[in-house]
This record gives sequence, structure tokens and C-alpha cells, in this order.
Amino acid sequence: MGCPEEEADLATEVLLSADLRGIDSHGVARLIGYVRLWENNRINATPQIKISHETPSTAVVDGDSGLGLVVAPQAMDLAIQKAQVAGTGWVAVKNSNHFGIAGYHAMKALPHDMIGIAMTNASPLVAPTNSLERLLGTNPIAVAVPAKEQPAFVADFATTTAANGKLEILQRKNQEAPVDWIQDAQGKSSTNPNELKTGGALIPLGGETGSHKGYCLGAVVDIFSAVLSGANYGPWVPPFVSFLPLAANPVGDGIGHFFGAMRIDAFRTAEDFKTHMDNWITTFRNSQAITDESPVLIPGDPERKMTAKRMQEGIPLLEPVVQDLLSLAQRFSLQL
Amino acid sequence: MGCPEEEADLATEVLLSADLRGIDSHGVARLIGYVRLWENNRINATPQIKISHETPSTAVVDGDSGLGLVVAPQAMDLAIQKAQVAGTGWVAVKNSNHFGIAGYHAMKALPHDMIGIAMTNASPLVAPTNSLERLLGTNPIAVAVPAKEQPAFVADFATTTAANGKLEILQRKNQEAPVDWIQDAQGKSSTNPNELKTGGALIPLGGETGSHKGYCLGAVVDIFSAVLSGANYGPWVPPFVSFLPLAANPVGDGIGHFFGAMRIDAFRTAEDFKTHMDNWITTFRNSQAITDESPVLIPGDPERKMTAKRMQEGIPLLEPVVQDLLSLAQRFSLQL
Repeated sequence: MGCPEEEADLATEVLLSADLRGIDSHGVARLIGYVRLWENNRINATPQIKISHETPSTAVVDGDSGLGLVVAPQAMDLAIQKAQVAGTGWVAVKNSNHFGIAGYHAMKALPHDMIGIAMTNASPLVAPTNSLERLLGTNPIAVAVPAKEQPAFVADFATTTAANGKLEILQRKNQEAPVDWIQDAQGKSSTNPNELKTGGALIPLGGETGSHKGYCLGAVVDIFSAVLSGANYGPWVPPFVSFLPLAANPVGDGIGHFFGAMRIDAFRTAEDFKTHMDNWITTFRNSQAITDESPVLIPGDPERKMTAKRMQEGIPLLEPVVQDLLSLAQRFSLQL
Repeated sequence: MGCPEEEADLATEVLLSADLRGIDSHGVARLIGYVRLWENNRINATPQIKISHETPSTAVVDGDSGLGLVVAPQAMDLAIQKAQVAGTGWVAVKNSNHFGIAGYHAMKALPHDMIGIAMTNASPLVAPTNSLERLLGTNPIAVAVPAKEQPAFVADFATTTAANGKLEILQRKNQEAPVDWIQDAQGKSSTNPNELKTGGALIPLGGETGSHKGYCLGAVVDIFSAVLSGANYGPWVPPFVSFLPLAANPVGDGIGHFFGAMRIDAFRTAEDFKTHMDNWITTFRNSQAITDESPVLIPGDPERKMTAKRMQEGIPLLEPVVQDLLSLAQRFSLQL
């Protein structure tokens, strides 16, 4: 596509981190989608990423329509630099694209003894509580917290009950979805994973009596990522597939992200903090489980286990993904 | 109790803000509970609140066992002051007590054209996903965002499907709870609102297929509020009722809070931001509702409506609350 080699390497690393962590929907399977967006002039392979505004602890970054996989790590690095000087750093990003998994970016803070935060808005697939209209994305939040002897606490979750990727898997397998995931075109609860193709929507986290809270969370992610930065929000967020048209009359530039880094020793010594995080983690992990088959987990445990497995055994790819990658190799005349 | 008059006034304002907003469980009904904690030497009526550590954008505040109603507004003011200089301000608080409604504190940022954030940990009533043990509080998060012509966006929610106050109402009315609110002592889903008295627990936001996300959120609130500040976390958080004993071997001081203030113009002009917030709010509010009876709401709408009503009609108090207040008046020889 003409990406500078260093940026292509970075994008590769972000995609592979998703595959290693078992989040296959956000890994190399997405590569062909990015290429299609580039072919449609929606992704700029050689962006001039720049800071459009800053204070000691904040900045707005203009991603110049670059790959989110390239824009986001640079913005997170800036948040980390700000935190080194001001205690914390907060960077809102406009004019970007899909950034892969939020967890990758939040985890960049860990080696600096910082807490990392990453969020992004996304194509509108989610109806606010009481609404028929799709106005929010699955808008994920990731928070990474360092520990001492224990592995880091890494929460990374969509603000819907289920991310869109899980729905796609059910569609392929022709299986029903659990309740509280989806509503149909009339706003009624549905278990048909294909409802989104006929006017249905994803439901915010919380289900029947709690979805107003998931709606609040998704809204906060949208506001921090896009209204603060000057990106598109709500129904104007650009779709991540090239065959869907852009919204008319955009209200900002591209999609938006929001990153935070907090230096632990801006609050207390990293040694004290990490010792207590170890205690927090072991207390929760060792608490009595409801059943022996399902132990109490710490956020990040399943992905860490998967990473260890795939580093040993490799990353299994579905045949359609292999075919996509082969077609890309041919398209760009790559030797395999 | 011997509170300085200014601090007593502040505490009163925080409690009344809850009653005005319709969150009766956090209003003057709680006054007698605070007095009991003071009688048990768990609340210090004349705290020396001090900053124990700070950087340009952060601080840790030691609440000296004061009323959270007094400690929290001072900590939020400090976050606002930090934001005026550094762009953002983040204050973790230890050695505090129950702080009333999170929304009051977050909303303090609004007149400064800042986004306000407030969260607190709380007595352990919530079992993490897969666990039988109560290790987290209902750990609320509030986010307040200013708009221009539209009223502010104010999200304020517990990270469980239902706050404990809603359960207490069902207990009084002898009604069943919805599914996804509670588990019994064996970890099975239950609709009996009295389960917490016999070893049951509240369930994190998200229900059967999503509670791991509510667990993540509650955990982040606990870590930011207490592991960062040096307060008690998890099962060690002091109970908010005086008849329950403190945990043995505390891991920190009192309960913990976390506050944030972000100056809008540290990202883009307040004028631009607030104009787009108006557009965000009207777009969501005017979206097509599933039924005419339940319009699409903006976070803060129900509480704003209730405030308007109660400013007109007064705040209705339940008879037991009136009796508690009368007994307090007698206890402290107040003229009524």
C-alpha cells in the first residue's frame, strides 16, 4: 500500500497481538478490509500525523486518515511522554481509522509503571436504551494496570453485551444468540444473529434492566473519543467496511480515539502500588468459585493463556482468511 | 457532631442534592447512619484533610477519616485547580467515608467548562463473575459533560445491574427482584431480594453473558480509588453501617475515591465542543423510540426532571426517615 516500512511493521505487530490474544476478529483477518478502505481512498498509507493542540497533560492528535494501527500507538506514546512530565497524559485523536484491539494500546503503559487507558468509537451498530436507531458503536474500553510478581490486570471490553465479532461467529455457525445481545427492527429482544441485516441493533451492556448503564458507557466513549477530538460521533462515525457509504454531512474528521497514561508514582511509590496489586489479584483469583470448572479470573487471564498457547503452537487461521491473505500476496506481488 | 459550620453546610448540600435528584437512598435518610459511624469513632467530625503527594496533574488526598461528604468536594476542587494549570487534574483519596452521590462531585466541573469524573469504592456486596465471595462494592462511576443550550450530560451509575438502594426498596415492598440482580449463597441466580442476608451477593452489571464486563468496571473503580490512593480495597473496604465490624488486618486507610477534571479547552475550544455536544444530545434525544411512552433519554434527564418537580413541591420523606431526623434533633438538642 506504500506504508513506510516502520509503520507497516507496527501495524503488523498490532494485528498479530490480537491473534495471539485470541481476538481473531481483530487480527490479520482484518488486513483485507484495511486494503479495501485504502483502495476506496478512506485510508491514507502515508499520513502526516500531527499534534493539533496541547497542554502539559493533554493533546489532540490529527491522524491524517492513517491506519488506526499506526496512529493509535503514536498517540499512546504521546500520552506516556506527557505523563512522564505532568504525572498523567491524555490524548484525544481525530481523523483516524479502526485501531485494532484497545488492549494493545493500553498495555503500552505497563513497562513505564503507568496505568494505560484506551478507547475508541466505532461504526454505529448499537441502539441506545429505548431507541430503534443505531447511534453508537460497540465502543470498547481497555484499562491496563501493572502488578509486581503477578501478571498485569488488563481489562478490554466492548460496551455492549457482545462484540460484533461474536455475532459474526454465530452467523457463520447458524446458531442462536443469547438474550440481551440483540433487538429486532421493532426493538423487541431477539436471538437471531442476523437481525442487524434487517434493521435490528446490538443492545448496550446491561440487558433488560441495566442497558441504560451500558448506554452511558458507550456514550462516554463516543464523547471522549470524538466530541473532544473533533472526529465524527454517533451516527456519523464512518463504517469500517468499504462497501457501506460514508454518512452525509460529517460532523468531524474520521473516527476518534482517546488514550490515557497515569504514572503510578504520581500517586504513590510504584513498589507500594504493585505490592498491593499483587495482593488484590491473588485475593480475587483465590476466592471461592461457584464451580470448580470455572475458577475466578483476573481481567487478562484468558488472553494471557491463549498467548502462551499460540506462541507454542502457532496461530490457527480459518481457510477464508488464508485465501484473503493469498489474494493480497498476489495483489501486491509478494513472495511467500 | 462538632463539624465546623462550613463543612456541615457542605455535607447538607451534598445530601440534599441526592434528595432533589430523586436518589432518596443517598439523601438525608443517611444522616443517622453517619451519626452512628461518628459515635463508633469511624468518622472524624473535625478532620485535617491534607495532600499527601502531588504532581502538576495529580494528587493524593488523606481525608483523615472525615465525612466523605466533606472530603470529596475538597478533593474534586483540587482536581479542578490542577486542570486549570495542567489541562487535567486527577485526585485519588484515601482515609475517607461514604461520599453521597457520585454525580454531585462530577458536576462540580461543569461551571468551569470541564468534564468531571467521580468514582468510589464501597462495602463489599458484589461477587466477581464465577465467585461465591463478596469482594467488590457497587462502585459507582459518574461522568458530567457540559453542553451549550442543552442541559449537561450527567451519567451516574453503580457498576452492578442494580444499586443496593433498589434492593432495599424491594425488601420493604416484599417484591421479587428481576433476574441478573442477585445470586444466592450457592451462586445461583435468584429473585429473592433478601439473599444478601443469607450469603448471597449482587451480580456485576451485564448479567448472565456479560457480568465479566461489570466485574472489570467495578475492579477498575476499586483499583483507581483505593490501590492508587492507599485506601482499603476489595473485601477490606469498611462497611457503611456501624453494626458491621471492620475487616481484620486492613490493607489501607478508610475507603477510597477517585476524581478527574478535564478542561475542555485543553483539547478544543469550549465553544466548538459545546456546540457539538448540543448536536450529540439532540440527535440522541430525537431518535425514534421503540414506544411513544418511553422516549430516548440523555443521561441526567430523569434526575433533572425530578429536581424541577421537587424544587416546586418539596422533597417527600418516608415516615421512618422523619422519625430518624426527629430523634437526631432531640439527640443534638436542635430547635425545629
